[in-house]
Amino acid sequence: MPAYKAPLRDFDFVLNELIKVQDVIPALPGYQEATQDIYTSYLEAAAQFCENELAPLNRPGDEEGCHFDAATHNVTTPAGFKEAYAQYCELGFPALDCDPAYGGQGMPKSLAFPVMEMQCSANVAWSMYPGLSHGAYSAIHAHGSEEQKATYLPKLVSGEWTGTMCLTEPHCGTDLGLLKSKAEPNGDGSYSITGTKIFISAGEHDMSANIIHLVLARLPDAPKDVKGISLFIVPKFHDDGSRNSVYCGALEHKMGIKANATAVINLDGAKGWLIGEPNKGLSCMFTMMNAARLGCGMQGLGIGEASFQGALAYAKERLQMRALNGVHSPDKPADPIIVHPDVRRMLLTQKAYTEAGRALTTLLALQLDIEEKHPDSAARQDAADLVALLTPVAKAFMTDNGYTAANMGMQVFGGHGFIREWGMEQLVRDCRISQIYEGTNGIQAIDLLGRKVLLDQGQKLRKFTKQIHKFCQTNEGNDKLAEFVGPLSKLLKEVGDITMAVGMAAFKDKDEAGAAATDYLRLIGHLTYAWMWARMAEVAYAKLGQGEDDFYQAKITTARFYYAKLLPEVEALKATIKNGAKPLMSLGEEQFAC
Amino acid sequence: MPAYKAPLRDFDFVLNELIKVQDVIPALPGYQEATQDIYTSYLEAAAQFCENELAPLNRPGDEEGCHFDAATHNVTTPAGFKEAYAQYCELGFPALDCDPAYGGQGMPKSLAFPVMEMQCSANVAWSMYPGLSHGAYSAIHAHGSEEQKATYLPKLVSGEWTGTMCLTEPHCGTDLGLLKSKAEPNGDGSYSITGTKIFISAGEHDMSANIIHLVLARLPDAPKDVKGISLFIVPKFHDDGSRNSVYCGALEHKMGIKANATAVINLDGAKGWLIGEPNKGLSCMFTMMNAARLGCGMQGLGIGEASFQGALAYAKERLQMRALNGVHSPDKPADPIIVHPDVRRMLLTQKAYTEAGRALTTLLALQLDIEEKHPDSAARQDAADLVALLTPVAKAFMTDNGYTAANMGMQVFGGHGFIREWGMEQLVRDCRISQIYEGTNGIQAIDLLGRKVLLDQGQKLRKFTKQIHKFCQTNEGNDKLAEFVGPLSKLLKEVGDITMAVGMAAFKDKDEAGAAATDYLRLIGHLTYAWMWARMAEVAYAKLGQGEDDFYQAKITTARFYYAKLLPEVEALKATIKNGAKPLMSLGEEQFAC
Repeated sequence: MPAYKAPLRDFDFVLNELIKVQDVIPALPGYQEATQDIYTSYLEAAAQFCENELAPLNRPGDEEGCHFDAATHNVTTPAGFKEAYAQYCELGFPALDCDPAYGGQGMPKSLAFPVMEMQCSANVAWSMYPGLSHGAYSAIHAHGSEEQKATYLPKLVSGEWTGTMCLTEPHCGTDLGLLKSKAEPNGDGSYSITGTKIFISAGEHDMSANIIHLVLARLPDAPKDVKGISLFIVPKFHDDGSRNSVYCGALEHKMGIKANATAVINLDGAKGWLIGEPNKGLSCMFTMMNAARLGCGMQGLGIGEASFQGALAYAKERLQMRALNGVHSPDKPADPIIVHPDVRRMLLTQKAYTEAGRALTTLLALQLDIEEKHPDSAARQDAADLVALLTPVAKAFMTDNGYTAANMGMQVFGGHGFIREWGMEQLVRDCRISQIYEGTNGIQAIDLLGRKVLLDQGQKLRKFTKQIHKFCQTNEGNDKLAEFVGPLSKLLKEVGDITMAVGMAAFKDKDEAGAAATDYLRLIGHLTYAWMWARMAEVAYAKLGQGEDDFYQAKITTARFYYAKLLPEVEALKATIKNGAKPLMSLGEEQFAC
Repeated sequence: MPAYKAPLRDFDFVLNELIKVQDVIPALPGYQEATQDIYTSYLEAAAQFCENELAPLNRPGDEEGCHFDAATHNVTTPAGFKEAYAQYCELGFPALDCDPAYGGQGMPKSLAFPVMEMQCSANVAWSMYPGLSHGAYSAIHAHGSEEQKATYLPKLVSGEWTGTMCLTEPHCGTDLGLLKSKAEPNGDGSYSITGTKIFISAGEHDMSANIIHLVLARLPDAPKDVKGISLFIVPKFHDDGSRNSVYCGALEHKMGIKANATAVINLDGAKGWLIGEPNKGLSCMFTMMNAARLGCGMQGLGIGEASFQGALAYAKERLQMRALNGVHSPDKPADPIIVHPDVRRMLLTQKAYTEAGRALTTLLALQLDIEEKHPDSAARQDAADLVALLTPVAKAFMTDNGYTAANMGMQVFGGHGFIREWGMEQLVRDCRISQIYEGTNGIQAIDLLGRKVLLDQGQKLRKFTKQIHKFCQTNEGNDKLAEFVGPLSKLLKEVGDITMAVGMAAFKDKDEAGAAATDYLRLIGHLTYAWMWARMAEVAYAKLGQGEDDFYQAKITTARFYYAKLLPEVEALKATIKNGAKPLMSLGEEQFAC
């Protein structure tokens, strides 16, 4: 596999030509300094770090994995991981989009997201150490007391300390209402927390001086179900340097992300402090979870990009067979496999999904920035609604497409793709978890259709589709864009009809929503990507003839590929949604094994 | 993961109620003794062996892998593999469908295929040792001289010796025309063979006393390209016990099938003997390859079945959330996840693909039996044509669906699916290679559309579709089957139209065939499975009310699921095929990286 090269030109395209963040960002209070030059210099610095420090550690990290010492409960990360993290802190990256009040650099999400994408491409297992830490920062920042913020945030921002999210228990992941960990008050404002947490990413390691666990547990007499869950801060080490009784009990042996320590965390009367209101832990945790879901989507995106780069280089070098229409490279014993239509289909699928995903995440990042900083509350609400609607889409659609892309990249390599040293199969294994954690993609689908679309009678959805409708109207007379605007308008109308039909059916039978959800999410995903590709084509047409025609022509050609070869999936989705719940619900439980 | 249970009831259904092999087999010369009782007793013995011996070695084999000793060039297989192989030989399984003239039991393929499926479910890495050996048996049996047959076949049939296929070289896999290994005549009828072979499955191991390598190499002055390739027998040990200079140079580190030794084989003037005609090695090798392609399809099928069994058991046990329509198990803290529509969608996808695949392979196995033994040459030709047409479909469609099924099984497990000890992710890793080796699935698609369909102007395809047409005609007035026969007839007509359109387009531009191939293969796959499901429903309706209604009702319900939720993929395929080659071929090579 070739060395990873950060797609800086495409970041520039998406940020400055497509989404045009500079039209918005410097006008937001607090982001005045986030000019295009600042973005560029940060992205270049991050690219250097990801290309030169993180990417070379990716394969060795997978082979070595993490080491657990049962005697000391210590975990050692693969060679070089700790040093790379130290350098990352030295460069100030943990502080990038953190609050200046606690030492942060106060940069927007629309800058932080491309940085995250690069980390995911270069070394997704490594990226999760600072990634989880940032989640802990966000939760404490949003819900902590002033004292808690003063205590924990500066060290999390500098990267001296890291953080985790401790939700899952052996018997519950999706259904946190079943959670059993207990928190008993000590009488001094602290709590004594006991329980077993599993699947704790970056749960124990040797990178930072302290680890701040955010732990869900139940207070005595707490209501059953999710209404009785509270959130606690449980540091590995106390102020006085003494060890808290929160220990790593084991590391999981996993399919991928082997260089990330997925820990069993045992709390045995560990001392912790309530964060936020009692019994409101789940909503506090959702501050982290929504960010984590977008972070998952970035993993699908980043891995798709890495796999594309690997497959493209191989397809240009590997000589095998002649082009169907005659010899392409007469000076060589065979033609490079990029001449074959089916190899191009795989490469273009990777490219089309990746570039549309990059556009979507940048659009969402800007909405997050608006949601946080815009002086107008209606603008903040609009942005928040779009983020709420599209977060499950970004998580599930981007990770499913990332997995498809990673598998295609591996397929381009033929037998060599199955061999570890090439690195292509690692991308498949590393990507696979992104479809599962932070809420399986099935859960995302129910979140989208049930909570985000049907619960408010389509209000958030209409806000979104109005934007697409407006785009279609604006470009109605644009002959060049007609090949995109036509199908996009048609799909937009169909999505409205389908949403109405599913909503009516679900009103009578909730299983109809459950049955439609996964297909519906892909439908909305395609609507979003079709919009992104039409917009990218619009920008590209306007820039043709200005000296970078290859770049812009590639956008138009890839948009055509997307509409011709990927978007038709909606024809199947419309049919399967229409066929409803009955085909899923009719088989008796005991008949499955027949 | 639960212990593997062989699907004996479903084998019985497919063999005796659907395909009705007993209407054909005992009438074929040489198969008189292959009665239903004989089938049953063999299948029960194989089930016992696979459930009790092979399945328990599957997880440990993956963890341990094979060991290579560079000093001795020896390979040690994981603990228990050798002993299981000894028992397999003792039970006579290597001889199952081999020629009685060489110690074989002369049983039909329609019995051998279910046995193969069980091995693939229980332990696909192990199954490849006897699998490759059987391929070598077939090639020598078909193309060897009487002396060669007498020398090698009895030991291969007994299992004392095993065999390999040595095709691939570092610079060529798909394109064997680039092959470089050389064979110089020694003057005594033997040849001195030099070259490096890679990706040799079961290439070196400790299970058998000798390994018979079948090696492709070029004679001096051989024509370039595939027309100058010859096939040689290269034993690891000579008659006198002396070691031949064919050595394992290394084992590959792979994503999956880790318990199978994927060897680099170095030939350094190794002594070998020509098998078949000079320069006709590739067609000799295709004897093995076609069988190997069906064997690959069986891997997708077997792994899909294993994953389904694992996921089904978990979905019945794992408690998480309540059913959307209200509490299902009030005595439990949550409902088993099988109540959720999306979990059912995944389980039913596994079930529908697996059972249709089992029907297809049994149908093909019977055609192989007819092709080999039928006294009427026209009947043999019809059978051979159907096998030729559907071999690439069985290979690619079944392995792609197997991979989908394995991924869904893992998804049902949520986070636990990613953890190695559960075994679900191993099935994903083990299945992945089946889409690549023995000709990538992209190559299968070109084989189907180019060689099998267009080359004879659709003659083989029409023979096949006539059978489906006849089924539809016969059941035209059958109200119960109308929900299947209607869509099947429609699809049948569409496939005819699409084939014609693609053929016309490809006549002008060969890339049109290359661009359509992968989608076309899935289209034919769905046509085949839709036919299988309609036939299974037909049989099931006739058997209702006879005491096994759960079994037969499950067939009808699963057929409905297939038609409602999987078959609609053809709506997308029709569109993508129609959109042609241009969207794939327009992007300039240098524009990919833009």
